[in-house]
Amino acid sequence: MPELRRDPVIGRWVIIATERAGRPSDFQLQEDVTVEGFCPFCPGNEEKTPPEIAAYREANSVENGPGWRIRVVPNKHPALRIEGTLDERREGVFDRMNGIGAHEVIIESPIHDSSFCTLPRDHVRDILRVYKERIIDLANDSRLRYVVVFKNRGRLAGASLQHSHSQLVALPVIPKRVYEERESCTSYRETRGGCVFCDVMEEELSLDVRVVDRNDSFVVLSPYASRFPFEVWILPIRHSALYETQDEETLGQLAEILSRTVERIDGTLHNPPYNLLLHNAPLRSEQTDCYHWHFELIPRLTRVAGFEWGSGFYINPVPPEDATRYLRESRLGS
Amino acid sequence: MPELRRDPVIGRWVIIATERAGRPSDFQLQEDVTVEGFCPFCPGNEEKTPPEIAAYREANSVENGPGWRIRVVPNKHPALRIEGTLDERREGVFDRMNGIGAHEVIIESPIHDSSFCTLPRDHVRDILRVYKERIIDLANDSRLRYVVVFKNRGRLAGASLQHSHSQLVALPVIPKRVYEERESCTSYRETRGGCVFCDVMEEELSLDVRVVDRNDSFVVLSPYASRFPFEVWILPIRHSALYETQDEETLGQLAEILSRTVERIDGTLHNPPYNLLLHNAPLRSEQTDCYHWHFELIPRLTRVAGFEWGSGFYINPVPPEDATRYLRESRLGS
Repeated sequence: MPELRRDPVIGRWVIIATERAGRPSDFQLQEDVTVEGFCPFCPGNEEKTPPEIAAYREANSVENGPGWRIRVVPNKHPALRIEGTLDERREGVFDRMNGIGAHEVIIESPIHDSSFCTLPRDHVRDILRVYKERIIDLANDSRLRYVVVFKNRGRLAGASLQHSHSQLVALPVIPKRVYEERESCTSYRETRGGCVFCDVMEEELSLDVRVVDRNDSFVVLSPYASRFPFEVWILPIRHSALYETQDEETLGQLAEILSRTVERIDGTLHNPPYNLLLHNAPLRSEQTDCYHWHFELIPRLTRVAGFEWGSGFYINPVPPEDATRYLRESRLGS
Repeated sequence: MPELRRDPVIGRWVIIATERAGRPSDFQLQEDVTVEGFCPFCPGNEEKTPPEIAAYREANSVENGPGWRIRVVPNKHPALRIEGTLDERREGVFDRMNGIGAHEVIIESPIHDSSFCTLPRDHVRDILRVYKERIIDLANDSRLRYVVVFKNRGRLAGASLQHSHSQLVALPVIPKRVYEERESCTSYRETRGGCVFCDVMEEELSLDVRVVDRNDSFVVLSPYASRFPFEVWILPIRHSALYETQDEETLGQLAEILSRTVERIDGTLHNPPYNLLLHNAPLRSEQTDCYHWHFELIPRLTRVAGFEWGSGFYINPVPPEDATRYLRESRLGS
């Protein structure tokens, strides 16, 4: 059983995934090679994944067979397990609990190398709806407090399989970063009134030097204090804490802007590896929660060095205003 | 002039190093190739670096010529500049200040590929004394509030030059991570009394399952909630907030344990890339400050993926107890 441990100094939870451990020789850094050949996520190979949790499939197709458009399966080497009790306890200065949670893979399309900017908009919206449906389903489990939804594209961004997929990790704790953002929203509301994300958007729209794109429901920004070159945030214009309460119309608008953003990133930076991460309020938060959900997209162009690691302090060689200009000018295809 | 910007949500400062910017095509991820050939840090090439700030050199040698054992020079492409005023100001929801600070390189030895575990102990102690002397010198500048001392070994750990060197970045702000650790120390002292690092060490020494090594003055631990495989912390046994107040005897003991720790890491993991980072109290802190200085050493064995990036939540596939056992068993040479 994997274990969750809390650092006694910094309060950060870590999954200690004992069952994935190996000998030290297993950890010599791998070369970045794209493994071609057999793909367990391609149609026809459904039996190579654990049985599906959910799927959008043709009416006459059968579970765990071909005929699907989007397919959700458990991660074959999950970092957390769904069975068991949390068994939270303190041992001296140390806090631990059992590694209860879920780790799922969302196979985005039967096409081996699809992308948000090559798939039809309706298909992207369906992927975004699957995120929502999985969060709603997992929220029924009262042991779980947060679902991290993310996508790693490319080996350098952490993807171990090339076939386009997203992942989710459902946790019995709230990740430190989300916790901090939420605390910040609370204190901003108490001291200044309103929502810090809403105020940032309003200011950015009036300054108009870091606005990459927008449509009726979303704004894409290069954040003022971008940590990484060409980092972008996709923010819903209407204040809302919870991704899982978004309606079909909003998901359609999100599909449009996400697809266009990936196209801009790909065009400007030649299909870089990237990480996409949903920032959302904890499960079962109130609609009135002060958090403002959004996506963060980070192209992996620079290596993060020792300075950044330990200090939480970043050096970004590209001013977000320059990144914005390049991304805006990117020629869009369709 | 580079700029420091504070994220309005999370409060994290970022250096926006405008003068290092380039076109998007400059940011396509480089292959990991070790560039051989000319080395600006090797003896005889002193004129290829900016003029030295400090050096330990033979009595009859001249500044910026050969004959040095350790040499400190400004970074040729500094992230921050020492000239100017902070000019801190708020623009709407955004805080910024000029990128005032220092960025220095400590060339550890004339030998191109030396290591803490191959250099004589006295030489390692001298490197550690140079860290101390540079911090003391920079503390005279009242604009500066913190000095990050770090070492990246290997390109995958962020080193752009192979010749063994450390770096320091002096900042007019306190990095978020240090700030948080210090807040945590304060609140621990207020609620439980004592120092959280001292209490962790005491508990670890009595449990004895994550203690990698120790000598009279230092303990090397695999931290309970290790974020990364084979992460280790080197902690002074005697509580002290400030690295720069350590005496010769303590620096000698530190040289011994650091050298042995790198030897264990190299032996167990076959000379992996790593980051070493000094965690220290802010400049000019009181001796009675509740912080407990230490070093953190992180071998770069796994890529950090999207999940970890944005959430601040880590999955570690190697239990620290296993890492401890391997590191303890590592055969030491000399």
